[in-house]
Amino acid sequence: MKKIKVGVLGATGLVGQMLVRLLENHPWFDLSEIAASERSVGKTYLETMKNRWSASESIPVYAKDLKLKECSPGLDCDLVFSALDSGVAGPIEEEFAKAGYAVSSNARNHRMEPDVPLIIPEVNADHAALINAQKKNRAWDGFIVANPNCSTIHLSLALKPLYDSFGIEKVMVTTMQAVSGAGYPGVPSLDSLDNVIPFISGEEEKLESEPLKILGSINGSSVANAVFSISAQCNRVSVRHGHMESVSIKLGRKAETEGIIESLESFNPLEGMGLPSAPRHPIIVRREESRPQPSLDANAEKGMASIIGRIRRCSILDYRFVVLGHNIIRGAAGGTILNAELLRAKGYL
Amino acid sequence: MKKIKVGVLGATGLVGQMLVRLLENHPWFDLSEIAASERSVGKTYLETMKNRWSASESIPVYAKDLKLKECSPGLDCDLVFSALDSGVAGPIEEEFAKAGYAVSSNARNHRMEPDVPLIIPEVNADHAALINAQKKNRAWDGFIVANPNCSTIHLSLALKPLYDSFGIEKVMVTTMQAVSGAGYPGVPSLDSLDNVIPFISGEEEKLESEPLKILGSINGSSVANAVFSISAQCNRVSVRHGHMESVSIKLGRKAETEGIIESLESFNPLEGMGLPSAPRHPIIVRREESRPQPSLDANAEKGMASIIGRIRRCSILDYRFVVLGHNIIRGAAGGTILNAELLRAKGYL
Amino acid sequence: MKKIKVGVLGATGLVGQMLVRLLENHPWFDLSEIAASERSVGKTYLETMKNRWSASESIPVYAKDLKLKECSPGLDCDLVFSALDSGVAGPIEEEFAKAGYAVSSNARNHRMEPDVPLIIPEVNADHAALINAQKKNRAWDGFIVANPNCSTIHLSLALKPLYDSFGIEKVMVTTMQAVSGAGYPGVPSLDSLDNVIPFISGEEEKLESEPLKILGSINGSSVANAVFSISAQCNRVSVRHGHMESVSIKLGRKAETEGIIESLESFNPLEGMGLPSAPRHPIIVRREESRPQPSLDANAEKGMASIIGRIRRCSILDYRFVVLGHNIIRGAAGGTILNAELLRAKGYL
Amino acid sequence: MKKIKVGVLGATGLVGQMLVRLLENHPWFDLSEIAASERSVGKTYLETMKNRWSASESIPVYAKDLKLKECSPGLDCDLVFSALDSGVAGPIEEEFAKAGYAVSSNARNHRMEPDVPLIIPEVNADHAALINAQKKNRAWDGFIVANPNCSTIHLSLALKPLYDSFGIEKVMVTTMQAVSGAGYPGVPSLDSLDNVIPFISGEEEKLESEPLKILGSINGSSVANAVFSISAQCNRVSVRHGHMESVSIKLGRKAETEGIIESLESFNPLEGMGLPSAPRHPIIVRREESRPQPSLDANAEKGMASIIGRIRRCSILDYRFVVLGHNIIRGAAGGTILNAELLRAKGYL
Repeated sequence: MKKIKVGVLGATGLVGQMLVRLLENHPWFDLSEIAASERSVGKTYLETMKNRWSASESIPVYAKDLKLKECSPGLDCDLVFSALDSGVAGPIEEEFAKAGYAVSSNARNHRMEPDVPLIIPEVNADHAALINAQKKNRAWDGFIVANPNCSTIHLSLALKPLYDSFGIEKVMVTTMQAVSGAGYPGVPSLDSLDNVIPFISGEEEKLESEPLKILGSINGSSVANAVFSISAQCNRVSVRHGHMESVSIKLGRKAETEGIIESLESFNPLEGMGLPSAPRHPIIVRREESRPQPSLDANAEKGMASIIGRIRRCSILDYRFVVLGHNIIRGAAGGTILNAELLRAKGYL
Repeated sequence: MKKIKVGVLGATGLVGQMLVRLLENHPWFDLSEIAASERSVGKTYLETMKNRWSASESIPVYAKDLKLKECSPGLDCDLVFSALDSGVAGPIEEEFAKAGYAVSSNARNHRMEPDVPLIIPEVNADHAALINAQKKNRAWDGFIVANPNCSTIHLSLALKPLYDSFGIEKVMVTTMQAVSGAGYPGVPSLDSLDNVIPFISGEEEKLESEPLKILGSINGSSVANAVFSISAQCNRVSVRHGHMESVSIKLGRKAETEGIIESLESFNPLEGMGLPSAPRHPIIVRREESRPQPSLDANAEKGMASIIGRIRRCSILDYRFVVLGHNIIRGAAGGTILNAELLRAKGYL
Repeated sequence: MKKIKVGVLGATGLVGQMLVRLLENHPWFDLSEIAASERSVGKTYLETMKNRWSASESIPVYAKDLKLKECSPGLDCDLVFSALDSGVAGPIEEEFAKAGYAVSSNARNHRMEPDVPLIIPEVNADHAALINAQKKNRAWDGFIVANPNCSTIHLSLALKPLYDSFGIEKVMVTTMQAVSGAGYPGVPSLDSLDNVIPFISGEEEKLESEPLKILGSINGSSVANAVFSISAQCNRVSVRHGHMESVSIKLGRKAETEGIIESLESFNPLEGMGLPSAPRHPIIVRREESRPQPSLDANAEKGMASIIGRIRRCSILDYRFVVLGHNIIRGAAGGTILNAELLRAKGYL
Repeated sequence: MKKIKVGVLGATGLVGQMLVRLLENHPWFDLSEIAASERSVGKTYLETMKNRWSASESIPVYAKDLKLKECSPGLDCDLVFSALDSGVAGPIEEEFAKAGYAVSSNARNHRMEPDVPLIIPEVNADHAALINAQKKNRAWDGFIVANPNCSTIHLSLALKPLYDSFGIEKVMVTTMQAVSGAGYPGVPSLDSLDNVIPFISGEEEKLESEPLKILGSINGSSVANAVFSISAQCNRVSVRHGHMESVSIKLGRKAETEGIIESLESFNPLEGMGLPSAPRHPIIVRREESRPQPSLDANAEKGMASIIGRIRRCSILDYRFVVLGHNIIRGAAGGTILNAELLRAKGYL
C-alpha cells in the first residue's frame, strides 16, 4: 500500500506539534507539508519551533527541515490535518476541500453542519457516508471530516456502549479540564495556580450538542440526532493534560452495575480493522476507588483511551461515574489521525 | 457582659490553629485552655507549634504561653470547641458534655444523632432547641452542638433561601475540594500536583445526608428531615483553600433567574442579632462569567460567606450554579465559633 | 497638610491594580487620575476591569467611576506613578517629567541613567538629591524617580545593613521568582505547572547592576557605584507571589552570625519619619529552619518587608541566607508609593 | 550469560516501585524476590500495591504475584537492591552483605564509610575496587556498594568532565528539588502548593561531601577525596520529578565556553561497555536559553541523563550553568541498577 501524502495546517500550535509527533513513522501517512500563519512561512520547522516546541522528545528528525508554507491550497499532499484556530479555520478548510483535499479537522467551525461528519471511529464510523452528500451539496472535489471537542470525545466514548445496551435519557456532566485544552500560551499561570475557574467559553454548548449528533443515526444523507438531554458544567483546573468528567446518567432501561461494566469493557468496534492508531481497548474501566487520575491515567493506551472509574448508582438519575481522557491526543491530534485512518480503511482516501 | 471562658480541643491541627487565630480578641469568648494529644501535653503552644504553625501571621501573642493540656474534663472553661480528629472525637466530646461543658464541635461523630443539633446559624438556628432534649435524654449537664461538613455548609447556605422560596426536589452536586480539607499533613504533594483525585473517603455520604437534617424542621424534640434527593460526586483538586461546587437543582415551584438571585442576595437572617462572626452578607452573588474562584473569592467576608456564581438554567433539572466557600473558616473553625455565638445569643450559654 | 493629587499610568495592569488598591484612603495622596493604553480610554475603571481585576477585595469604591485617560500630560495631578510596560514607559515618563510632573516609576527604562535616583527609602534616601541635577541637566520642571527591579529591592534591603556594618566584596544569588513578576497574562500555565524555568529575560543583568547603584554613594550630583561583584542566576517557579533568593556573600570584615542578625534586625532608618507605607520592620529575621516561605511570609508587614532566614556560614564565601519578599507590593507598587512618600517628606513634592 | 537472581528491599516505596518497573525484562537481572516492612509480608505485590502503585503503567505482570518477604537474609537471590528508608537500612544492609549478598544500595547510611564504594559508573567505576578491601576488613562474603544522593549524582556527572579537563577549585550550588525526592507520602500539599521551602533536612551536608569522595582517587584500598569546596543551598519546589541545580564553579585552569561544552558533550566513559541501563549520552547540553526544564527534560535518555544548560561566565567564580536530572531514575532506582550492571561487567557479580 502506497503511503498517502499528508499536510498539517497550524503545525506550530500545541495540537499541530502533537500531529507532527504522532505522524512520525506513521505506516499509512507521510507528512510532507506543514503550514502555519504568515509570520512563519518560509522558515524550517526546527527554526520556527526552537523556543516553542513543548515536548520532552526533540522535534522528530523527519520534520526538522520541512519548510512552513501558507495555509492555502497548493500543498503537495492529498490529505490535510487541520489544527487551525477556530478564528481562521472555517474558510481555510473550505478552500482546501473545494480544491480537492481531504480535510481531517480538529476545529469546531464545521462540526455541526448537517453534511459534515463529526466522527469518533469507535462510535459512528458510519457517519462517514455524509462525505458523499457533502461533496455533492457543495460541488467539492475534497471534503471535511470533523473531530469533536476534547471533552465531547471522551464523554461520547463512555456513553456509546451504554446508549446501545440500555438507551440514554439524561446526562449530567461536570468537567475538570486541563490547561492544555486552551492551547499555548492559553491559560495564564495566575489564573490556574491554586485555583479553579468555573467557566470555559463555549465549552458547555459544545458538550451539550455534539454528542447528540455523534450518537445520532445516519439516514442516507443526513443524521438524525440522538434524543436525550445533556447538562454540562465546565471548569478549568490546575492539570497539564487530561480532562476529568463527573457524569450522572439516566438510562432508558434497567441496568445492573456489572452489566454496565461489561458493556464498557467489551466495547471494541474497531477490533480487527487494523487502524494503526486505534487503542487495543478504547475504554478502560478502573475498579480502584480513587482512579482514574490525570497524572496516572491520561496516557493509558498512548493517550487514545477513555478511562472510566467509580461506577456506582445515583440517587437522582441512575448511574454515576467519572471518565478521564487525554485532551491533546485522543481529544485532538490523535483523534483526527484515527479519523483519517478510518477514512482510508473505508476507501474515502 | 462577662466573657465566657473557652477551650480548644485539638488545638495543634489545622482547624485548631484557625480557632486560635479567630478567637484572638473575640468580644465574647476568652480562650484560656488549649488541649491536644498526649505528646504535646505540658508544652507551651509556642514551643509545640514552632515548626507547625501554618499561617502568615505569627501565633497570636495571647496564645503563645498557653500550656497544652489533656483532652479530658478538668479544663477551666465553660465551652470547648472541638477540632478533634474523628478517630478520637466521639468519646472525648461525650465526656466533656457529660461533665457539664458546652461542646461546639467540628467533628463528624455526633452530627447525625437525632438529639444533636447540626447547625448553620443562618439556616436552622431553631434546631438549637434539641439541646434540651439532648440533655434530658442523656442526663448531661452539658451538651454537644455540631458543625456540618465543610462542603455541606456552603451547599446548605446556598440551598436554604431557594428551599424557602421555591422548594427543592433534587440536588446534583460535583465538588472540587481544596487540599486543606484533609488537614495537615493530609494530601501528599504527589497526589495533588498536576492532578485531580475523584474520590474523598466518606465525603459523598456526608454531603448527601447532612443537608437534609439541616434543612429539616424541628418539631419539639426532634427534627423531621427535609425530603429531597442529593447526589454528590466529590473530587480533590490542587487548591489550598476553598471548596468549589457545581450544583444543579430541581425546584418545587417555578422560578425565574431574577427571583433566584433576589432570594439569595436578600438572605440574611442573622441581621441585627449582633453575632460577632456573622458575615454582613452570608451569600454573595457574583455576576461575572468566570467567578467565583478560590484564589479570588474564598476569603470574601473574612472567609465566612458562600459565594455563588454562574446562575443559569439547567436542561435536565431547573437551575445550575457554582458555590464556593472557605473550607477552614466558614467550613470549620469559623462555623463552630458562629454556632457558639448563636448559642450565647439564645441563652444556651 | 493638603493631600497631593496623584495619577496612575498603566492602571489596568497587575502593578497598576495594586497601586489603585494601596492608594485607597492614603493619608497623603489623592488618586484622581488613571491612565492606560488607548483601547480603554474613556471607559470607567469598573467597566474596564470587570473581567481583569485580580484581587480578592473588590475594586475600591473610590476608583470605580474614575475614567481612564490617555498616558500623556494633561492629567489633573502633580505626581504620577508609572506602572507602564517598559516597551512604552521611556518616552511617556519623560514627557510627564518635562511637563512638570513628579514621576515615581516602576519601569526599568530610566533606572540606570546617572541623574535618575534609583531609590529604596531605607537604603539610599539621600540619592533623592539627584533630582536637582536631573532637573537642571534636562531643563525639566518635573522629574523621574525610579523603583528598582523586584528581586533587586529585596536583595538590596538585605545587603544594606551588612554593607554598612561589614562591607561586601562578593554576592552570589540564585532566585526562585513568582509568576506574578511577569505580569498578566504573563507566564503560561503550561510553562509553570510542575516546572521550573531557569531563565528570565533581562533579570540577571538587572540584579547584577542595580544594587551597585543603590548602594553607591552620592557625591553632589552623581552616584559613585558600590564596588563589589554580583553573580545572579534567575529561575521562575510555580509560586503566585513572593520572590525567594538564595544568597551567599563575602564580607569585607570578619563577622559573627549574631552580629549579622543584630545588624539586620536593628536596621530601621525610616523609624520616626512617619512615612505611611513604611513597614515597622523593613527586615524580619526568621530563626526556624524552614522559613521564610512565600505562602507563609510574603505578606509580612503588608508585603513591605524583606524576610530573611537560614543565616549560616558558607564554605566558599562567608555567609549564606535566603531572602524573600513580595514582588508586587514592596517589589513594585508599594515601593513606588514609599518612594513618593519619601520625596514628600524631604520636600521634593 | 545466565541471568542473576536479584531482590528488592523496600519494594513498596517510591524508589522500590521504580526498581520493579526498571527491572522488567532486564537482560541481566531476574527479579525474583521482593521484601518490605512486616505489615506487608506474605501478601502479593499486586494486593499490597493496589492503592499505592504510583505509575501510569500498571504493575508489571511479572511482579504481580511475587510475595513480599521479610527484609532479612534468606531471600533466594545473589544481589539485592536496597530502597530502604535510612531509618532502617543500615543494619539490614550489613546483615545481607555479611550473609554473602551483593547489596546495591540507594540509602545514605554507608555512603561515606571509607571502604564502601560510592559509585556513579561514568565517574568513578574504579572505586569498585574498594569492594575487596571492604570484604577483607569486615570479613564479609558479600558487600555493599552505594549510590549517591539524588542531587549529588547529577552534580557529580556535570562536574566530572570539567574536573578532568580543567580542575575544580570551588562549587556553589543552589538546588530546586522535586517533591518525589521526599518519597511518599513525603511533602504535604499544603507545603508545596504555591510555595518554595528553603530547607531539606540533611541535604546540604550530603551535597557538600559526597561529590568529594566520588571525584576522589582510589589508591589501593582507600579513596583520597578530591580537594575543593562545595557550598550548597537546597530548596523544595512544586515539581513532581526532576531536580534542578543552579551551579557556579571556579576551575583550576583557564577554560573557554566552547571547551567546556566540548568536554561535557564528549563525556561518555561507558561507551562500548554494553551496560543495559547506560544512557547513550550521560550528559546532554541544551543551547536554548530557557532549557533544561523538569517538565520537558527530566525524562531525557529514559531519565538516566544529566541535562545541562545556560553555560555562561560567572563574574565571581568562573562559569555558571544549570543541571537537571531525574531524581527517582538516575538519582535513585536507575542509579543502583547501573551500579550493579557495572559490577557485573567488572566481574564482581
